[in-house]
Amino acid sequence: MLTRFSVKPLASMTRQLADVASGRAAPDLVIRDARVLSTYSERILPDREIWVKGGRIAAVKPAGSFSGRGAAFYDARGGLIAPGLVDPHIHIESSMITACAYAEAALLNGVTTIFCDSHEIGNVMDVAGVEAMLEDARHAPLSIFLTVPSTIPATSPQLETAGGDFTPEKIAGLFDRWPEAVALGEKMDFVSVAMGDERAHAILAAALERGRPVCGHVYGREFVAAYAASGVTDTHEAIDREIADDMLEAGIWLFLRGGPPTTPWHSLPHAIKTITELGASHKRIAVCTDDRDADDLLTFGLDWVTRQAVVAGMRKEQAWAMGSLHGATRYHMEGEIGGLGGGRRADLVLLTDDLEPVSTWYGGELVVDQKAITPVLDQALSNRYRYPEAAYHTVKLPEQVVLTPALPTKPVTANTIRTELPGIILVHEKIRLEPANDWQTHFERHGLCFVTVIERHGKSAGNVAHGLLSNFALRSGAVASSVGHDSHNIIIAGTNEADMQVALRAIEAHQGGACVVQNGKVTAMVPLPIAGLISDKRVHAVAEEVKLLKAEWDKAGCTIPYMGFNLIPLSVIPEIRITDKGLVTVPAMDIVPLFDAA
Amino acid sequence: MLTRFSVKPLASMTRQLADVASGRAAPDLVIRDARVLSTYSERILPDREIWVKGGRIAAVKPAGSFSGRGAAFYDARGGLIAPGLVDPHIHIESSMITACAYAEAALLNGVTTIFCDSHEIGNVMDVAGVEAMLEDARHAPLSIFLTVPSTIPATSPQLETAGGDFTPEKIAGLFDRWPEAVALGEKMDFVSVAMGDERAHAILAAALERGRPVCGHVYGREFVAAYAASGVTDTHEAIDREIADDMLEAGIWLFLRGGPPTTPWHSLPHAIKTITELGASHKRIAVCTDDRDADDLLTFGLDWVTRQAVVAGMRKEQAWAMGSLHGATRYHMEGEIGGLGGGRRADLVLLTDDLEPVSTWYGGELVVDQKAITPVLDQALSNRYRYPEAAYHTVKLPEQVVLTPALPTKPVTANTIRTELPGIILVHEKIRLEPANDWQTHFERHGLCFVTVIERHGKSAGNVAHGLLSNFALRSGAVASSVGHDSHNIIIAGTNEADMQVALRAIEAHQGGACVVQNGKVTAMVPLPIAGLISDKRVHAVAEEVKLLKAEWDKAGCTIPYMGFNLIPLSVIPEIRITDKGLVTVPAMDIVPLFDAA
Repeated sequence: MLTRFSVKPLASMTRQLADVASGRAAPDLVIRDARVLSTYSERILPDREIWVKGGRIAAVKPAGSFSGRGAAFYDARGGLIAPGLVDPHIHIESSMITACAYAEAALLNGVTTIFCDSHEIGNVMDVAGVEAMLEDARHAPLSIFLTVPSTIPATSPQLETAGGDFTPEKIAGLFDRWPEAVALGEKMDFVSVAMGDERAHAILAAALERGRPVCGHVYGREFVAAYAASGVTDTHEAIDREIADDMLEAGIWLFLRGGPPTTPWHSLPHAIKTITELGASHKRIAVCTDDRDADDLLTFGLDWVTRQAVVAGMRKEQAWAMGSLHGATRYHMEGEIGGLGGGRRADLVLLTDDLEPVSTWYGGELVVDQKAITPVLDQALSNRYRYPEAAYHTVKLPEQVVLTPALPTKPVTANTIRTELPGIILVHEKIRLEPANDWQTHFERHGLCFVTVIERHGKSAGNVAHGLLSNFALRSGAVASSVGHDSHNIIIAGTNEADMQVALRAIEAHQGGACVVQNGKVTAMVPLPIAGLISDKRVHAVAEEVKLLKAEWDKAGCTIPYMGFNLIPLSVIPEIRITDKGLVTVPAMDIVPLFDAA
Repeated sequence: MLTRFSVKPLASMTRQLADVASGRAAPDLVIRDARVLSTYSERILPDREIWVKGGRIAAVKPAGSFSGRGAAFYDARGGLIAPGLVDPHIHIESSMITACAYAEAALLNGVTTIFCDSHEIGNVMDVAGVEAMLEDARHAPLSIFLTVPSTIPATSPQLETAGGDFTPEKIAGLFDRWPEAVALGEKMDFVSVAMGDERAHAILAAALERGRPVCGHVYGREFVAAYAASGVTDTHEAIDREIADDMLEAGIWLFLRGGPPTTPWHSLPHAIKTITELGASHKRIAVCTDDRDADDLLTFGLDWVTRQAVVAGMRKEQAWAMGSLHGATRYHMEGEIGGLGGGRRADLVLLTDDLEPVSTWYGGELVVDQKAITPVLDQALSNRYRYPEAAYHTVKLPEQVVLTPALPTKPVTANTIRTELPGIILVHEKIRLEPANDWQTHFERHGLCFVTVIERHGKSAGNVAHGLLSNFALRSGAVASSVGHDSHNIIIAGTNEADMQVALRAIEAHQGGACVVQNGKVTAMVPLPIAGLISDKRVHAVAEEVKLLKAEWDKAGCTIPYMGFNLIPLSVIPEIRITDKGLVTVPAMDIVPLFDAA
């Protein structure tokens, strides 16, 4: 079966490769009549051929150099060969598929290595979840490395109930047991880090003592200096030119995040101005995807992000280097991936001149040919890893739960959550509610709907928090998800208790999922039975389900798409969020009541 | 005492640094009114101040940010502050001083980190010599890391007698015992590597299995592919634009070597054309010194090399990045050194606008102020490490040894070694000698002198090899050295047996050294009692001795300077060399007789 381990370590192959490079033995494969996109020199080299042996690059030679026998040939017909892309920061769970299933989409996009932070499954299933995903990753036809989840729970048990609790000791254990654990994942509690919180810094120390880089996540220019001083050396959250520039100067690698242009994920066009407008070198800047649903993954993959860097003004060779070599360099793996140097893995992509991937080789094996997966890959994907049984039973709800708040009988000031595009920041909007006969009156007058979070880890007998969303524009029914970042309790927005109850029980029945309910009926459902986060189907099947979900979601009127909706409980981003413990203001990290006396 | 360990590991300091960066605690030191040379963005940032705490950078802030008490101030008066330079490839022994003594020159040059390959002392004293130098390095006020000697002996016991024999097992042991051992040192036997030699590849594997980078040394474009395929990822031997370009594309980091412009060390102006003429990115290119005698070290240090990159067409910011951050990145240490990011060591240099170092801070401690060392540094240098007693007894000679060959009585073809500037390559010149009455007649007719190598490790009861140098232009007397790369047997060039004998015994008396002899008298001598390679004096004292040696050397007429002379036995560089085993042709690696029948 094709996995990362199909290619032997370089240490065991140097003599074999030297034999081929010197012409004493034949390569397995010669990709002939190619131009080479060099991520090292950032040039396009004409008239080359690539010699592959044992899944590694033995040499890149002038076209026509190999005249012997015993090699297979692939004719690139003058096309551009580049190293496979390297995604330095993603969460597989966001694609609602397993690591094995993710590989299919990645390889179609020309991505051959990813650095994933499996903190979603860690938030649900603790270390057992992360280790299950690591096993999954070992079975995948893709190079998957782990940035160990650093911030589980994202805040604290006072502010939210998570299924996981990653202590410094547990994190150290993951580093020591798993060679794939190459870095500490995004340290999301940047306020705690800046404030010198003991647990946060003990976690940083667990990585730094082992020489592992620390990945970051920070908002606000005022936090950058303390964050960098704490040993954090990358970020994917630079949302504009100024903070991008601050980060770079603080010694932090920048991962420019691209994504569907209508979403807040697409901060690349802003942050890249540190290069295009402020004149910074791009050598410590990469591109990443961070989160992508199964549907968007096929359209807005890292190849698309890389092309967006060209749209923003980079040369193609620079952009592809930012998509491959730079991420590899950040993780100290540029000797293995990210370029077409001798001895590297033969993770290669044939590109159009517009940087559209056409064919992909993973460890020298042709896995995508002319935009279609090959039988070798199809076979690998048909025998996917199966998660342990416990992963299929993670939605634990009380028998009865009230999903909507009592109607105020006196004038109150409601602490509402105002959703605004692009949707990362949620505005704390205080709305005065005069007594009314029903919620419908308030909703129509102020543009509101219910939002409710229900604890689902079986830890608190079903904590429920009630809130109100402003500007979400849900016209009727309910939308719901068991993917409520980062604790992944169930979040439901709705206009009425009945439809919200239907949504809740539909998710319970599948042990996880995302759905739309109208008039008591589920109109779209993506079942996510693994940890309540992940489907066990292949990517195209899940993408179809997601497409339908998004269509119904739009039809219901929601201004914020599914992915943004899932962030409403993410209590590390300003200004107000809702967790199972209530409404949380950020960065104050206080719980506020839904209603203050008016 | 000031050493690398005076600054605590970042893992133990993050809370303290976050406190300072956030303004909750005062820095120890504020360097105010500075411009900052950013190696990250390759820009000069105006109006900054640098906050230092516990020897690390807590933050770089806008000028005037610190308004509290409790900090010391240094007024940069608008000067340029840059990270200390990082020399990615040097041999301390070439400077004929200890690691502690080297620190003084380095800090004067603005160099705060070096990666040394102590293969000279390893060639003499095996692992014990390397470990003694590592202890020396731990006592030095400088960050010294080891690239573990990979090629001892440089070739094989058939071709030369060395004092050391670095097996794969010994190399693995050094990696496992010494955290300073961060990479495998230059793999000089590139022909063996390319040919798939078992021992050479077992040594590569010892490094690669441990995830350590492998440093290179290769001549000849035809070897680049096999060399890269064998896992080598840097070189400092790119002597022209074309091979530099080949190396870069093969995935090899380039260290552009600069040195006294009349010597072959100064290949930077040629190799840098891969950037300036062929358009390659400079992001994987650094600068280095490789070898520098104690005198040249003070004049042609890495700061000088960095300025030469500017002379060759790089922007100042790019050149300084090539002198600092890029070497750090190559060794995966860019989180600790090479830039002014938060949490990094406060290894800083105040520069003139022409990149001349004026003041240096090592781990936040001012060690050079206005081009003079401070009392703190002087004190550290006065208590240098003392090498073990065995290191002072390494020149073991037989009582009697004949240093000149018998005069041919029939016509012969002499396989002579023609020295030609710049002096790295030695030409194999075949000269027909008709019988003559004395050597003097041959010398005058053909421009020759004697060259003799005497084994000095006590291994072979004093092997002696006789040869003839052509074009060396020694007029009278003898010149000699116990630093004959890489086995460090004694090499003597001379016009007569008597002066050569005086030179030999003078070196024996000091247990190592380099000297010039005229008319039976030693006119210049640099004693090198430690391993026959190193003085135990401070750098300026040795520099004075070296200056005198060079003056006498020139006076004697020698066309090749002392440093180049030492390379005559280096049997890995074309075309012909002399070791204690005889004349060796490269790359054939054959021993040829001094005389063939004519």
